[in-house]
Amino acid sequence: MSAIGSKELLGGFRRIKGFVNETPILTCSTLNRMFDTNLYFKCENFQKVGAFKFRGAMNAVLSLEERCVDLSKGLATHSSGNHAAALAHASALRGYKAFIVMPRNAPETKQRAVKGYGAEIILCEPTLQAREETLAAVVREHGSQIVHPFNDYDVIIGQSTAFFETILYGLDKGVRFDKVLVPVGGGGFLSGTSLSAHFFSEGTQVIACEPSGADDAYQSFKNKRFIPSKDPKTIGDGLLTSLGDKTFEIMMEYVDDVCTVEEESIVEAMRLIWERMKIIVEPSSAVPLAAILEGKVHVKGKHIAIMVSGGNLDLTRLPWL
Amino acid sequence: MSAIGSKELLGGFRRIKGFVNETPILTCSTLNRMFDTNLYFKCENFQKVGAFKFRGAMNAVLSLEERCVDLSKGLATHSSGNHAAALAHASALRGYKAFIVMPRNAPETKQRAVKGYGAEIILCEPTLQAREETLAAVVREHGSQIVHPFNDYDVIIGQSTAFFETILYGLDKGVRFDKVLVPVGGGGFLSGTSLSAHFFSEGTQVIACEPSGADDAYQSFKNKRFIPSKDPKTIGDGLLTSLGDKTFEIMMEYVDDVCTVEEESIVEAMRLIWERMKIIVEPSSAVPLAAILEGKVHVKGKHIAIMVSGGNLDLTRLPWL
Repeated sequence: MSAIGSKELLGGFRRIKGFVNETPILTCSTLNRMFDTNLYFKCENFQKVGAFKFRGAMNAVLSLEERCVDLSKGLATHSSGNHAAALAHASALRGYKAFIVMPRNAPETKQRAVKGYGAEIILCEPTLQAREETLAAVVREHGSQIVHPFNDYDVIIGQSTAFFETILYGLDKGVRFDKVLVPVGGGGFLSGTSLSAHFFSEGTQVIACEPSGADDAYQSFKNKRFIPSKDPKTIGDGLLTSLGDKTFEIMMEYVDDVCTVEEESIVEAMRLIWERMKIIVEPSSAVPLAAILEGKVHVKGKHIAIMVSGGNLDLTRLPWL
Repeated sequence: MSAIGSKELLGGFRRIKGFVNETPILTCSTLNRMFDTNLYFKCENFQKVGAFKFRGAMNAVLSLEERCVDLSKGLATHSSGNHAAALAHASALRGYKAFIVMPRNAPETKQRAVKGYGAEIILCEPTLQAREETLAAVVREHGSQIVHPFNDYDVIIGQSTAFFETILYGLDKGVRFDKVLVPVGGGGFLSGTSLSAHFFSEGTQVIACEPSGADDAYQSFKNKRFIPSKDPKTIGDGLLTSLGDKTFEIMMEYVDDVCTVEEESIVEAMRLIWERMKIIVEPSSAVPLAAILEGKVHVKGKHIAIMVSGGNLDLTRLPWL
């Protein structure tokens, strides 16, 4: 893992500062009492485009610029979710065109958001193969630069800054985090968080939290080899993706444990966060609290950072209705 | 209005500091762009018990203590909403018993919350007369001290601290607020806010925002005499109450204008806040943004503080479903 060291992480922090929101860290006395612990929620649901993904996309765009890569032909990716909006917005902020390949069945609201950032949407069939082929065609036609949603060191460095900000908060308040809990899908948020923990937060265990219906990180971690999910299913729609080779490698080196949770716990945890903290988080973001609810992570008397990934969801389709 | 001056307000701030949450002030670049303005949301939905009401109840309990009033027989009020939980929690924190008269049809969740703070609930018929008679009976039997939800100077002083914190934030950031928008029901939040504005915030207009279906403050303000609502109806269930004599008097002295909004605008504003800011606010809290949506308040290029009253509502009954 010579690719990313402490200087690269700090470089990313400096690079995107001023472009990203320094999101608040919220605590909740009711939840702390409930679990006899001290939880610190890093609220990336308040990030631009409503998710941590903006950090990675912004760092990728600015890093490509710094390396004098020609971006005059625009940037491109395929995504049905938060990375689409993130790359669209980051590109627009630097005056570049963005081409976003989205599956035909992507929610209307997500398509509107991406268009709202001025990106061009190219619809395709909702299969990974169709998405990759369409993206390749876009690149052939336009000569755009691809930014992968997670399996990319620039993106990972961008994602590392959320926990880095949390560490700075801890230094200011005199709090040392015993553990940091992160939801894992493709592994970009997990990789970035574990790198920040490794280089800047002594004694902090990194725990990845994953829905059992999409448990490729868990299987890969336990078997020490990359095992992609087959037909994953979970309400945590941001976590359906399997790891990439780069995020797998970082996980094996810097993550202390991976735990899985059931769907009912995710819904219960999400509702607890909405009701008690009065913040809107997407199901994926509730996975770490679900792990605490299930007793999978010991938190009693400890200081626990919880990485909240985002707050984008359809407000007419709540999972408890 | 010799009852409350700048020293009384600062005394209240000092008194309840350490008991209340210093709630965050959030901004939203999307909403600012949408209305070409600068909005600062003072998030009392993150206050203890999920509403600003805790400030007033806490100040009332501590002020009664300071004045050596005998509280050994407990505190009492009638309320179906946030004041019930607020007084229950404030009393418990100081070791006093609380008796809360609630209408039989008060939501199960609200009753559970009040019980959760250790208070005793006395159920009655859902009429104002039954509530007042039952409360009087409780006081006769137990000798408890009544704390009115809004028509009480101690309560009003407590509510003033939310905008006072906002003013301190403005001093720190170099922001002078051109206007502060406050929802109005019984007028406690409005009175406290207008007093803080009058004594501590030069050039800040205070605008009360009210649902047109419960427009007693609007009618009273325009006609310069107290006109209570008859059969009020609004989704902003915290705003059904009419003003009291104390809050009416303060409004006439310190409030610059009152505007009314339609129900559809309240729902639209509430959804905008949920979707764009990722915070959960109750319908009453969306009334100020509804006034902006309707063009009732001019905000272009200005700095506008918005007092968010709370975030308590039934998450299974959202108004856009």
